[in-house]
Amino acid sequence: MYYKPSEILFGGDYNPDQWDDTVIEQDMRYFKEAGINLVILPVFSWAKLEPSEGVYSFEWLDQILDKIWENGIHFCLATPTVAQPAWLSKQYPEVLPVDISGRKRTHGMRVFFCYNSLKYRERAAAIAEEMAKRYGNHPGLAAWHVANEYGTYCYCENCQQKFRLWLKKRYGTVENLNDKWYNSFWGRTVYSFDEVYLPTELNDDYRFNPVRELDYQRFVTDSTLECFENEARVLRRYTPDVPVFSNISGHIKKLDQFKMVSKMDYAGFDNYPHPTDPRSLPAMKLDLMRGLKDGKSFLVAEQSPNQQNWQPYNKLKRPGEVRLLAYQGMAHGSDSALYFQMRQSLGGQEKFHGALISHAGTDDTRIFRELAQMGKELKGLGDTFLEGTCDAKVGFLFDWDNWWALELASGPTKDMDYLWQMHHYYRAFYEYNVPIDILRVTADFEKYKVLVAPLLYMMKEGVAQRLERFVERGGTLIATYMTGVTDENDRCVFGAYPGPLRKTMGLWVEETDALFPDEENEMILNSWMTQAYEKSSYGCTFLCDRLRLETAEPLAYYGKDFYAGEPCLTVNRLGSGKAYYLASQPEEAFVREFAEKICREQGVEPLFPSEGEIELTKRNGRSGEIWFALNHGKKPGYVDLGEKTYQDLLTGKRCTGKLVLESRDVAVLKREQ
Amino acid sequence: MYYKPSEILFGGDYNPDQWDDTVIEQDMRYFKEAGINLVILPVFSWAKLEPSEGVYSFEWLDQILDKIWENGIHFCLATPTVAQPAWLSKQYPEVLPVDISGRKRTHGMRVFFCYNSLKYRERAAAIAEEMAKRYGNHPGLAAWHVANEYGTYCYCENCQQKFRLWLKKRYGTVENLNDKWYNSFWGRTVYSFDEVYLPTELNDDYRFNPVRELDYQRFVTDSTLECFENEARVLRRYTPDVPVFSNISGHIKKLDQFKMVSKMDYAGFDNYPHPTDPRSLPAMKLDLMRGLKDGKSFLVAEQSPNQQNWQPYNKLKRPGEVRLLAYQGMAHGSDSALYFQMRQSLGGQEKFHGALISHAGTDDTRIFRELAQMGKELKGLGDTFLEGTCDAKVGFLFDWDNWWALELASGPTKDMDYLWQMHHYYRAFYEYNVPIDILRVTADFEKYKVLVAPLLYMMKEGVAQRLERFVERGGTLIATYMTGVTDENDRCVFGAYPGPLRKTMGLWVEETDALFPDEENEMILNSWMTQAYEKSSYGCTFLCDRLRLETAEPLAYYGKDFYAGEPCLTVNRLGSGKAYYLASQPEEAFVREFAEKICREQGVEPLFPSEGEIELTKRNGRSGEIWFALNHGKKPGYVDLGEKTYQDLLTGKRCTGKLVLESRDVAVLKREQ
Amino acid sequence: MYYKPSEILFGGDYNPDQWDDTVIEQDMRYFKEAGINLVILPVFSWAKLEPSEGVYSFEWLDQILDKIWENGIHFCLATPTVAQPAWLSKQYPEVLPVDISGRKRTHGMRVFFCYNSLKYRERAAAIAEEMAKRYGNHPGLAAWHVANEYGTYCYCENCQQKFRLWLKKRYGTVENLNDKWYNSFWGRTVYSFDEVYLPTELNDDYRFNPVRELDYQRFVTDSTLECFENEARVLRRYTPDVPVFSNISGHIKKLDQFKMVSKMDYAGFDNYPHPTDPRSLPAMKLDLMRGLKDGKSFLVAEQSPNQQNWQPYNKLKRPGEVRLLAYQGMAHGSDSALYFQMRQSLGGQEKFHGALISHAGTDDTRIFRELAQMGKELKGLGDTFLEGTCDAKVGFLFDWDNWWALELASGPTKDMDYLWQMHHYYRAFYEYNVPIDILRVTADFEKYKVLVAPLLYMMKEGVAQRLERFVERGGTLIATYMTGVTDENDRCVFGAYPGPLRKTMGLWVEETDALFPDEENEMILNSWMTQAYEKSSYGCTFLCDRLRLETAEPLAYYGKDFYAGEPCLTVNRLGSGKAYYLASQPEEAFVREFAEKICREQGVEPLFPSEGEIELTKRNGRSGEIWFALNHGKKPGYVDLGEKTYQDLLTGKRCTGKLVLESRDVAVLKREQ
Repeated sequence: MYYKPSEILFGGDYNPDQWDDTVIEQDMRYFKEAGINLVILPVFSWAKLEPSEGVYSFEWLDQILDKIWENGIHFCLATPTVAQPAWLSKQYPEVLPVDISGRKRTHGMRVFFCYNSLKYRERAAAIAEEMAKRYGNHPGLAAWHVANEYGTYCYCENCQQKFRLWLKKRYGTVENLNDKWYNSFWGRTVYSFDEVYLPTELNDDYRFNPVRELDYQRFVTDSTLECFENEARVLRRYTPDVPVFSNISGHIKKLDQFKMVSKMDYAGFDNYPHPTDPRSLPAMKLDLMRGLKDGKSFLVAEQSPNQQNWQPYNKLKRPGEVRLLAYQGMAHGSDSALYFQMRQSLGGQEKFHGALISHAGTDDTRIFRELAQMGKELKGLGDTFLEGTCDAKVGFLFDWDNWWALELASGPTKDMDYLWQMHHYYRAFYEYNVPIDILRVTADFEKYKVLVAPLLYMMKEGVAQRLERFVERGGTLIATYMTGVTDENDRCVFGAYPGPLRKTMGLWVEETDALFPDEENEMILNSWMTQAYEKSSYGCTFLCDRLRLETAEPLAYYGKDFYAGEPCLTVNRLGSGKAYYLASQPEEAFVREFAEKICREQGVEPLFPSEGEIELTKRNGRSGEIWFALNHGKKPGYVDLGEKTYQDLLTGKRCTGKLVLESRDVAVLKREQ
Repeated sequence: MYYKPSEILFGGDYNPDQWDDTVIEQDMRYFKEAGINLVILPVFSWAKLEPSEGVYSFEWLDQILDKIWENGIHFCLATPTVAQPAWLSKQYPEVLPVDISGRKRTHGMRVFFCYNSLKYRERAAAIAEEMAKRYGNHPGLAAWHVANEYGTYCYCENCQQKFRLWLKKRYGTVENLNDKWYNSFWGRTVYSFDEVYLPTELNDDYRFNPVRELDYQRFVTDSTLECFENEARVLRRYTPDVPVFSNISGHIKKLDQFKMVSKMDYAGFDNYPHPTDPRSLPAMKLDLMRGLKDGKSFLVAEQSPNQQNWQPYNKLKRPGEVRLLAYQGMAHGSDSALYFQMRQSLGGQEKFHGALISHAGTDDTRIFRELAQMGKELKGLGDTFLEGTCDAKVGFLFDWDNWWALELASGPTKDMDYLWQMHHYYRAFYEYNVPIDILRVTADFEKYKVLVAPLLYMMKEGVAQRLERFVERGGTLIATYMTGVTDENDRCVFGAYPGPLRKTMGLWVEETDALFPDEENEMILNSWMTQAYEKSSYGCTFLCDRLRLETAEPLAYYGKDFYAGEPCLTVNRLGSGKAYYLASQPEEAFVREFAEKICREQGVEPLFPSEGEIELTKRNGRSGEIWFALNHGKKPGYVDLGEKTYQDLLTGKRCTGKLVLESRDVAVLKREQ
Repeated sequence: MYYKPSEILFGGDYNPDQWDDTVIEQDMRYFKEAGINLVILPVFSWAKLEPSEGVYSFEWLDQILDKIWENGIHFCLATPTVAQPAWLSKQYPEVLPVDISGRKRTHGMRVFFCYNSLKYRERAAAIAEEMAKRYGNHPGLAAWHVANEYGTYCYCENCQQKFRLWLKKRYGTVENLNDKWYNSFWGRTVYSFDEVYLPTELNDDYRFNPVRELDYQRFVTDSTLECFENEARVLRRYTPDVPVFSNISGHIKKLDQFKMVSKMDYAGFDNYPHPTDPRSLPAMKLDLMRGLKDGKSFLVAEQSPNQQNWQPYNKLKRPGEVRLLAYQGMAHGSDSALYFQMRQSLGGQEKFHGALISHAGTDDTRIFRELAQMGKELKGLGDTFLEGTCDAKVGFLFDWDNWWALELASGPTKDMDYLWQMHHYYRAFYEYNVPIDILRVTADFEKYKVLVAPLLYMMKEGVAQRLERFVERGGTLIATYMTGVTDENDRCVFGAYPGPLRKTMGLWVEETDALFPDEENEMILNSWMTQAYEKSSYGCTFLCDRLRLETAEPLAYYGKDFYAGEPCLTVNRLGSGKAYYLASQPEEAFVREFAEKICREQGVEPLFPSEGEIELTKRNGRSGEIWFALNHGKKPGYVDLGEKTYQDLLTGKRCTGKLVLESRDVAVLKREQ
């Protein structure tokens, strides 16, 4: 009885418990007018649904669900477990978390429970079961949405006990723990797991004991995943065919989303780009979301139909911007355009957050019209690209443990930001219009021609060997400073970096200099490199490795400082492939040219040539290949489609040669047979 | 037996408990030399006066009061309840507050008690009674000064219980509370008042639950007022004719001063302008102080006779500056020039705060001479303007609940600052030399010709109706962005802003764009507006409402962004009046011209024309009208008195035509009959 | 049996408990290759040495110590008491400190114990005794190193009780306490020592009660010193001839190091200059270290052989920089060049901190080679300047109580920074190449010709009288703004500043203006001063005293503001000496010329003339005078040795006339007979 959408899911969060019948009737009319086909509810209604322990009050929800379904709209049923009722916190204080400062929280916020509280889990499973029993057969049920934006870190005594058990399971003995955690440093040797404390402000271990913090963050992911499964298990028992997921907060760093999503039926992303973000940043995050289930399509579970309320300066979405962002999501693998929210709340923290229906309560607004227009368009697209994959020949390695460990490290620079570093390299390939997959380090590398592994500081067991094989078989690998430094326990390699990748890269790193933010070195290219590049020298910043080459060949040299003349970019030939090493962070211009040349070398072609701030992607949908072209610029741009003819599914027009896109316009192209 | 001053009160805080007899004798001589006629004491002597519970030691105070009085000086007796003795905190820990972080405080600071502690109140009333009994008939007693600069926020269990009772009283039922607080948002529904917690860092409700924080701030005001009345009641029982007040800290936002002062005999303001403040800022605060009792004269209870110690850079008061600031107070309705402090402490936190008598302990200092000179002048002025009112035809609406709610709101911009917004508009009228009253929203609007209501976000019951009537009867109302958004529970209006003012303004607001701090839009004036203004276009910043006009007429249009060409300044004619709406914050130059034109339209004339940084005010004193002219500039300026002749009461000179004022000079003018 | 070094101590921290036998064997070879003659261990091995209470495990240490000694290397034995074992914290929670926020800490960090815990002291003494018994007769034992970088501040109940006893001992009675602490201010009078609380965030006394915080900081020093002596006493009982010390953290402000080092056999300094520090800043700190035992040579106990990990941007040490900094230490009185650390840890917080042997684990690195080269050089120098003193005729007064009190004061400016103020004046004399001693205020002033006492705010009993005598007998005293303000209890002088120095300076201070950071006044020199100086006027900033001269003569006048024309630099002749007063902070250029002229006047000659960023010092060693010349610049510089001939002990070359030093080069010169 699983609902298989035949259209892009269009709609989002709806909170009918805030409204009376008159308003709800009006909403139904407006939903129809806007082409809404899915709403998500009742995310925040636990207190309303379970007024006291085990006493349920579902009648109001029955009515509203029926009404929604009568109006031809599916619903994604949310277990309301993100915000427990006050009576639960009061009767069972263990439900409330303790913060990093050691303070027991009082009832209030959302996502404000201890993810290890057994009582919380018991009551969460109970209400999930109640909903599954009651609505599992409802024809309108499209999916289960568990809780909301997990991500609380708890430091209570219960978590402490569980953390010790988790460590015991991971390390077996204290001797092994002492060894793996390198506890001899600063006299941290323990003789019992009971001597290990959570890393908090009370012992400053959260910032002075990286490996402990790292394991704590892993433990939080594992515990949170248990929390999700606690409900998912119940739901799946009743409705084995209905997909179950939880939406991922924009603060993706908090939990290892590869792990989290492994137990979900798909990834659901809350996509809230900042108005000043370069377009490649949300693109990269969306590619990551697709990567969470190894290329499977996902949902954009939330985005904003207009301004937000929680940014420093909450700008209106410009005309066309809502549509552009929605298509960007779909272009990268989303099967939905879901929004927080359908109707704007009159009170509470987010009363100024945009909505389909604003406080003015009318369809006579710019935003309503833009969304209604898009609703029509989406209906027209049908299932053209639903579940479509996005093949890529370029892969970026991404790893949460690496992210955490890299940024927890004290030194070499305080400006370590894995996501921005990733983006620095991602952007260059993205702007060359080649599709990119973001891969876990255990992914299958064989289908790729180019792998980029920025700052792969933590070299987990087997990864280096697989990368070596990848190169030997003809692949191109790009690695950077801060590569191969530690093992999976954040313990440095014995012997020089890049440790197990030393042979692949053909060099070792003698030492690494940190530059001040306003400091720059130079990359001076080899004479034969110079012929291929626009300039003979480029700036580089951030960190400067001093390299000792073994089999690698230098391609560029530092231009300044006491290591002027030493290599800063090298290539190592291994088997039939190549491994490039960037010893410093080159300026954007260089990375862009470099990416292009690497792609050419490997025969990786851009989807189309383009000019202007055009984004290009491709999905292989149910009915073949679909190209997305999006103009993020304020000026017109074009895509050069070449000699073949395409149909723009949005306008129905046939296109060939140069397709001009106005500012913020979008084309969804299908090749004519 | 009430002392009715026949002179401006001149003197201030005196702490004789810090000094031995020799020093006190010297102080008396210096006081006489300086013309001091009032001292305030013993603000910080509770521990000295009550060495243990119920055991009093007043002899030293008897002596010092007699000595003061023998020297012809009145005193304002302070109940010393701002700093409880250590034994009280120790024996009754309930007296100590709990902070927003949940930490029980230890004994130490001043204003460091729980305003709801019954034990605190019991002991405070007891010592107040002891003082009333002992000194109630002392001929030197001029007034009662209760505690000092109230403003502690407490979060103890006792306050939590009281807050719940307060809520029960306000809302009656939990159902009503859930409704008014819009608890359905984020699943905050409660089933008992006991499920409501104080908004603290423990639940983050202080920043993520605006209405709860709003009510908590109201509750703090009510509780603090009870604290004041707890002592005032006792004092009034013994001395019904002696005025009772408490001085208001410069951090006026903490407590609703309209409420606080409603139970006092007058407002007493601690006036500590920052050296870089524009002169209109203290002017506005002083007007607000006068507004607290609907135009009645007030006291400047503290100001600094020289540098402070608690500013980042404590500058000396420039020659003439102390006098200038003292007269600015009087010009706006103060009947006093009181100072913290008479003699500089040798130890403690404020040992570097300026004083009449500095550490050097001599009258041979610049500051002593300046103050002594002013003492003579004030004596000369006698009661000329005592209790004088300051009629105004321009009123500004000001409201503490609005202040709190507006700044608690999440969005649309983080730079929301009610006081500075108020000042942006106040300044324009102030610089046009028209008197201004600052009014509570329940004030009588009938006597005004122009009402300015900047950012009147919270529209309390009945205010809109009264503003509508004001316009209909011929008044001019000026409203801005962020008007009419919520009701008194911070719940947004159902339907578009400005809610109940929609008819009066003749428009509704479709959406509001927040500008980045460095971003600017343009106001392009109507062609006929252009004729009246110096420029045809002005900058505007901060927020930009997109308006939908109903009966309003556009006066200016946005010049940029996607809403270029849409109206940003409108007027609506209603009855015989006009309502202007500013959809964005215009640059200062525009506001200044706009204010002038509005005044002209309504026949509101400036007191005099002037040139330079001249401030002009008028008080209607016991013996007729008195004009104050103050030159805040570093250069000479002038006032054009016209053809009439005035006497400068400070110099005795007759003035007519252009009266030149040197830098920091002051004139107090009376028209010759 | 005391080891009297015949060579400069070269080596540093070594953590063999982190390594297996193979690595340790390799280390021994590398140590020999590098010329290491001393290692410090086992700083962090308490948990390893005492696995449970009273059960010791020293065998591994026996072996390693023997191996070290077999390799001809001495060791400095560290009691491992800086980081207690987890079992100790767990069994006796009293061992864990409470922080300023009132939070009981959990086990984790180093220096993370209550310095007043009796249990901590008991176990610390026990393991110290165990080590003394076991290794007291080991021929390799060079010194005892107690704990590491003391400096934790604890606020537990036990400390509170001890603080009250400390106060009772210091003040005798509460009446005296009330008086000395000036408790009448803000009503702080107490009736029992039990009414005094530690100054914490719970009562805000740490920032609003300067004298209480001051006494608390004194108390922490006294308690920490007890902690040191608790171990030192045991060690000295077993090995009365072996020197005992603890190394001083770079955060020298935390503890009064004069007091701390008074109980040590020498000062040991952890010298970590920041790459952007002016060279005079570490020079000043090193002179201070020498001053801690009144001119006796000291140890640089730690410095970094390459980059650090805990700075924001951890730069590599440039070629020659390690050597230059090592010689700077020796030039100022150090008998050692000790490093943290010998081998880089693979894990933990400081895994990226530089080491003799880096993660690469090889001697084939730039840093290893530089250090090995220096090892040879140091061997060549032998004991030439060991224990050599550095006579100086210029003394700077320095005082921890003054530092604390000055910066605790609220006002006159928030930018009060004693160390930087000290450095502003120190730098001028330093750059004139005259040796400088840094003196405690109770030092013998007689041997000096010039005394500089910047901001001697706190005038302790007898100091003013001794300074007066110093001047009368012909000395030159330089004092500044913020002089003679308080007594040793931070209570302001009764009467004008500079209080007891008023006669010596011949003036009093009427008031002090604070300048904004971007504000400047002018010093306009007297006509006869103008002849001696390069410019007739110089900038001055920070604070401006308004002076009232009595016997002093003005040398310069303010050029701006309302006190333009008033004196800002004066001299007072008293007996056969002179006392200069700087009423404001002159720009560097003036101070440099002023220092030069003062020196000339007093016949204090620079060691040599020089050009470039040359540092010059002299030590009187076992075999006569040794001059150090160091070029801190990036360009060559020279020293003009005049007509005499010197031998450069590093190169063996004879030098006369202009000795050119390349960038970062060093010369150690001995005059030829």
